[in-house]
Amino acid sequence: MPFSAAALQNAIDNKTKPPGSLGQIERIAAQIAALQKTLVPKMESCRLTIFAGDHGIAANGTSAYPQEVTRQMVLNFLGGGAAANVFARTLNVGVQVVDTGVAGEPISHPALLNRRLGAGTEDCSIRAAMTTAQFDGALEHGRGIADSERFDAVCFGEMGIGNTSSATLIFHKLFDLPLLELTGRGTGLDDDGLRRKADILRAAANRTPGKLSAADVMMEYGGFEIAMMTGAMLAAAKSGTLIIVDGFIASAAAATAMAMQATVRPAMIFAHTSAEQGHALALRALDAEPLLNLNMRLGEGTGALLAWPLIKSAAAMLTEMASFDSAGVSGPA
Amino acid sequence: MPFSAAALQNAIDNKTKPPGSLGQIERIAAQIAALQKTLVPKMESCRLTIFAGDHGIAANGTSAYPQEVTRQMVLNFLGGGAAANVFARTLNVGVQVVDTGVAGEPISHPALLNRRLGAGTEDCSIRAAMTTAQFDGALEHGRGIADSERFDAVCFGEMGIGNTSSATLIFHKLFDLPLLELTGRGTGLDDDGLRRKADILRAAANRTPGKLSAADVMMEYGGFEIAMMTGAMLAAAKSGTLIIVDGFIASAAAATAMAMQATVRPAMIFAHTSAEQGHALALRALDAEPLLNLNMRLGEGTGALLAWPLIKSAAAMLTEMASFDSAGVSGPA
Repeated sequence: MPFSAAALQNAIDNKTKPPGSLGQIERIAAQIAALQKTLVPKMESCRLTIFAGDHGIAANGTSAYPQEVTRQMVLNFLGGGAAANVFARTLNVGVQVVDTGVAGEPISHPALLNRRLGAGTEDCSIRAAMTTAQFDGALEHGRGIADSERFDAVCFGEMGIGNTSSATLIFHKLFDLPLLELTGRGTGLDDDGLRRKADILRAAANRTPGKLSAADVMMEYGGFEIAMMTGAMLAAAKSGTLIIVDGFIASAAAATAMAMQATVRPAMIFAHTSAEQGHALALRALDAEPLLNLNMRLGEGTGALLAWPLIKSAAAMLTEMASFDSAGVSGPA
Repeated sequence: MPFSAAALQNAIDNKTKPPGSLGQIERIAAQIAALQKTLVPKMESCRLTIFAGDHGIAANGTSAYPQEVTRQMVLNFLGGGAAANVFARTLNVGVQVVDTGVAGEPISHPALLNRRLGAGTEDCSIRAAMTTAQFDGALEHGRGIADSERFDAVCFGEMGIGNTSSATLIFHKLFDLPLLELTGRGTGLDDDGLRRKADILRAAANRTPGKLSAADVMMEYGGFEIAMMTGAMLAAAKSGTLIIVDGFIASAAAATAMAMQATVRPAMIFAHTSAEQGHALALRALDAEPLLNLNMRLGEGTGALLAWPLIKSAAAMLTEMASFDSAGVSGPA
């Protein structure tokens, strides 16, 4: 049957269930079908790419953890011991890890993709986080990574001590949301730490009065891992691949991609509402209705991974479920 | 390491992630570990059992669908075309179907478990739904089904036109919750239908003034499928099997099992909040914090199935994730 919005709604409503009784699963199934332009969508393969990078702003004590943890976690990802690895193995999703600019010397490991744009960004509370060349390089590398293989869906995760600061500033500048309401505890700041972080972010935001383009926001306040994820999202959406958007940081990359290219939106499913303070606010600004709300705030793509089996099930519902006619089931009395 | 609550919390907090950052996944992991009394829980095998049965009260027009749909859906389950089949296949969970008392002649099918207690219950708006012998038989069959094989977790689903009426009356009588607030649209009643259903349920409830035991509530207002599910839950909990509780109807079976035997509670994880009106209220009475909220209201075990990969991931987190020590990752600064 040729694809149309009417044929799609008809197909969903003729499945053997009361209309609407699968709630969000029906909404997701419709989005996937529209993206793939078919009434029998396929959602079988998925990969997680974790982008790691360091942030100059972390030198100001904006995180509860020291900067070296970014590098240590890259090794943990490569060793298969992080939460994202465990969830990915459990859910049968492959993982690749990208060094976008971890502080210190390059990490040598056969499985690590080296796409370094520097040894961490500049401190964005006092100057631009990255140059135009670095930003362009991040987009290009991101596109290349997304284009390199074909999956029905992709999860993008991140690791970078200090990157809730970056994401907070991105949302603040893109959507003009109140900075203090967006500023959260990240990996676990105490009250003093949170006040210090808020002061530093205020100084950073005040550095660039006036409206900035999405590209300028990323150059001023972004991270290499966030910018590269934006590039990967732009390319994935262009090729019709479903993007499962993770939490607070990944949403900042998604918001940037959407601001740069509005047509990416239909390719995105928002996986979960993070416990990081600003995420719910940012999601409202993005008009996003995430699938999960598990009080998680880890990043790495962990929320996106947990949404994957639901998304897979949604596509299978449309492709495999019997209709009232085919199963000989009566409709409403 | 020997199992203790302190050792468990220590193990969770030493995983390479900020403490608490996996939210509900950590809570679930702790519950599974405590149930299995180990710091390395196993959550690999799961089966869905769908209990089908008819309800005498349906003759009063309490459902949007005709009674024959119960039988038709049993055939749909056996043919693999229902939503529960599709989700189960996608998530690698086996399915078995039990006829607990579908109206009409017994269905002959090699894969169907025949545990019929009658051709549907009596109309509980005018008399008790089942006899003591039928109730005892339902519990016994349920226990037998749960005891017949070993899985790390079980999902119990149901099908029975009219069974939101049964579940509504069970919650009303067990917890003294307001009947009108519990009464919902089921498969999709319109406003007139909802008013009619509310009137009939009021008449049914008024038939038995005074406090009833959980067993009496089930005999007066239950369904064969709900009572058999209660028996299966009691047996599964006794053997230390995790029970993934589905939606409104399955929660009524869970509430009955808990009222009969409080020690079953630690074996239960509530999968999702159903869109059926009374479920959120019932869940509060059960002090349950479900994993998912997808606006679903189909039953069949569909909500329980979608929670399974999250539960599997939670156990894997505890069993497979690296610790700060083992991965050489620094703690907070």
